[in-house]
Amino acid sequence: MKVALIGLGTVGRGVLEMLAKKDLGLVLTGIADSKSAFLDPAGIDIARVLARKKKEGFCGDQHLTAEDVIKKADYDALIEVTPTNALSGEPAIGYIKAALNRKKHVVTSNKGPIALAAKELRAMARKKGVALRYEATVAGAIPVMHTLDHGLAGNEILALYGVLNGTCNFILTRMAAEGLTYEQALMEAREMGYAEADPTYDVQGIDAAIKLVILANTIWDNGVKLDDVDRTGIDLLTPDALRLADEGGCTIRLIAEANPKKHLLRVSPRILDKNHPLVFEGTLNALTLETDMAKEITLIGRGAGSVETASAIIGDLLWIRDRYVQRA
Amino acid sequence: MKVALIGLGTVGRGVLEMLAKKDLGLVLTGIADSKSAFLDPAGIDIARVLARKKKEGFCGDQHLTAEDVIKKADYDALIEVTPTNALSGEPAIGYIKAALNRKKHVVTSNKGPIALAAKELRAMARKKGVALRYEATVAGAIPVMHTLDHGLAGNEILALYGVLNGTCNFILTRMAAEGLTYEQALMEAREMGYAEADPTYDVQGIDAAIKLVILANTIWDNGVKLDDVDRTGIDLLTPDALRLADEGGCTIRLIAEANPKKHLLRVSPRILDKNHPLVFEGTLNALTLETDMAKEITLIGRGAGSVETASAIIGDLLWIRDRYVQRA
Repeated sequence: MKVALIGLGTVGRGVLEMLAKKDLGLVLTGIADSKSAFLDPAGIDIARVLARKKKEGFCGDQHLTAEDVIKKADYDALIEVTPTNALSGEPAIGYIKAALNRKKHVVTSNKGPIALAAKELRAMARKKGVALRYEATVAGAIPVMHTLDHGLAGNEILALYGVLNGTCNFILTRMAAEGLTYEQALMEAREMGYAEADPTYDVQGIDAAIKLVILANTIWDNGVKLDDVDRTGIDLLTPDALRLADEGGCTIRLIAEANPKKHLLRVSPRILDKNHPLVFEGTLNALTLETDMAKEITLIGRGAGSVETASAIIGDLLWIRDRYVQRA
Repeated sequence: MKVALIGLGTVGRGVLEMLAKKDLGLVLTGIADSKSAFLDPAGIDIARVLARKKKEGFCGDQHLTAEDVIKKADYDALIEVTPTNALSGEPAIGYIKAALNRKKHVVTSNKGPIALAAKELRAMARKKGVALRYEATVAGAIPVMHTLDHGLAGNEILALYGVLNGTCNFILTRMAAEGLTYEQALMEAREMGYAEADPTYDVQGIDAAIKLVILANTIWDNGVKLDDVDRTGIDLLTPDALRLADEGGCTIRLIAEANPKKHLLRVSPRILDKNHPLVFEGTLNALTLETDMAKEITLIGRGAGSVETASAIIGDLLWIRDRYVQRA
């Protein structure tokens, strides 16, 4: 199967490294970063592209763009891993539409397009007879979407709750373990590379809320939007609150939860028993699905990382290959 | 899709109830318990069969047997849910072979055939161009096999460890929480219906070892057998051992683990930090898969139960329907 890749940040590099390392029957025929692009219908030498990117700061021909790859390259599936724009979803929405219009499958890690335009994009994919997969948008390496598609097929999903932001989980872990203030724990998270210079997106629960919207729309197709999420961050939590919880055998975690029958769609700090499956340390993510037959199923794993996110993208690509395309 | 079901114990009843309740496009055309059988190519009235079983102790015609259903009924997939015989795997191995020989798909919850004859049965299914699925054999409702097939596709599975026996986990939970002796906790497990009259199979780690063998053969195709498992049960554990662990912030769990590179295949009581993802209370099961890309993925859920096991079986049936058979 032939693939083209748009976006050469952390995720894109992870995907390329795995495509080069593993014999998955996937041939790269087009690639673009923000400054250049490169096409080769016979298959691109990935090591060379990565070396050039490292040395020169761009991967291909500076007269070519992502649009050239999407519209002209010879590929079966587009890997769209450009940076998330949570407000407009662009330019990724345009990229995805252009690929779907050419009847190409799309695999994306980009939360913007899926949170903002999933309904339209899914309808478009259906109409064109191709797949739109986005396992990597929620909870990194945890195969949430595959579990919904296959593992829990036949189940009605009644509700869900999870830890969908690793940065917040790290900060809360450190506040509880060492009695740090929010500011001290945030500084530690920055030093470890877990938090951005501007942490708003994480600590105010926006990132978790976007993932919650993606999950709710995928499961219940209920057209909820980011504004519909009842959202409270962790930035006002005090060491006192965590100490009080601790005295009762509990701790505090930022929990994203949805239950359509209770009209619940919320991201907020919750007090949980320390033995609760969603209480764990560090930057992990987790999701509990409440179902009618299997009852509660909890998935725990890495919510971010270059190769970890590549795992989700490659899982989607192989799903498409097995379902639609013969082994290359 | 047409299905036939062999075995009308807890699991069989759970599957029938779900087939009757949910509109899954699955039509039941044959059914057998240990005393009788019933065939109807137009579709069996499930409520009537269950009522008869309850009233008379058998479900169909006492002149007919499971073999009649397997060899004569008109079905696409056989649901084989007869009791596990861990020593010989029979009569289930014979049932499964007879169905595969007719080029029928097979879905089973029966650990015996899969632990003893997976290689032969899988080869036979491949040759006949049909599917052999056994999600329900390991960890009940937890979609382990689907996660291996799809969610972690492209990953190399390096090692695994898990809590694969809910009875032992319940006993250890109670010993740690209340300082009970093994005998006291076992009695409580019996009263709750979590332990059999003869608990050997569970408490000596045989059940967990069988599941470990199934997992190892599925993932690495390495032909390991029950005798290859280095096995220690929980029946010699003392309250003192649990108290000592507790004083160090730890507890004890019966852990099944496999790591082919380390030649490790073991079921034994292990001391784990209380914050470890595999430490939880009650009868839940869990499995951690260590992979090259996704790193550690942990799945937690119900390891037993009528409807919970039906969830795994129905997931397999829908997988077959989507892959091989048109919607009925």
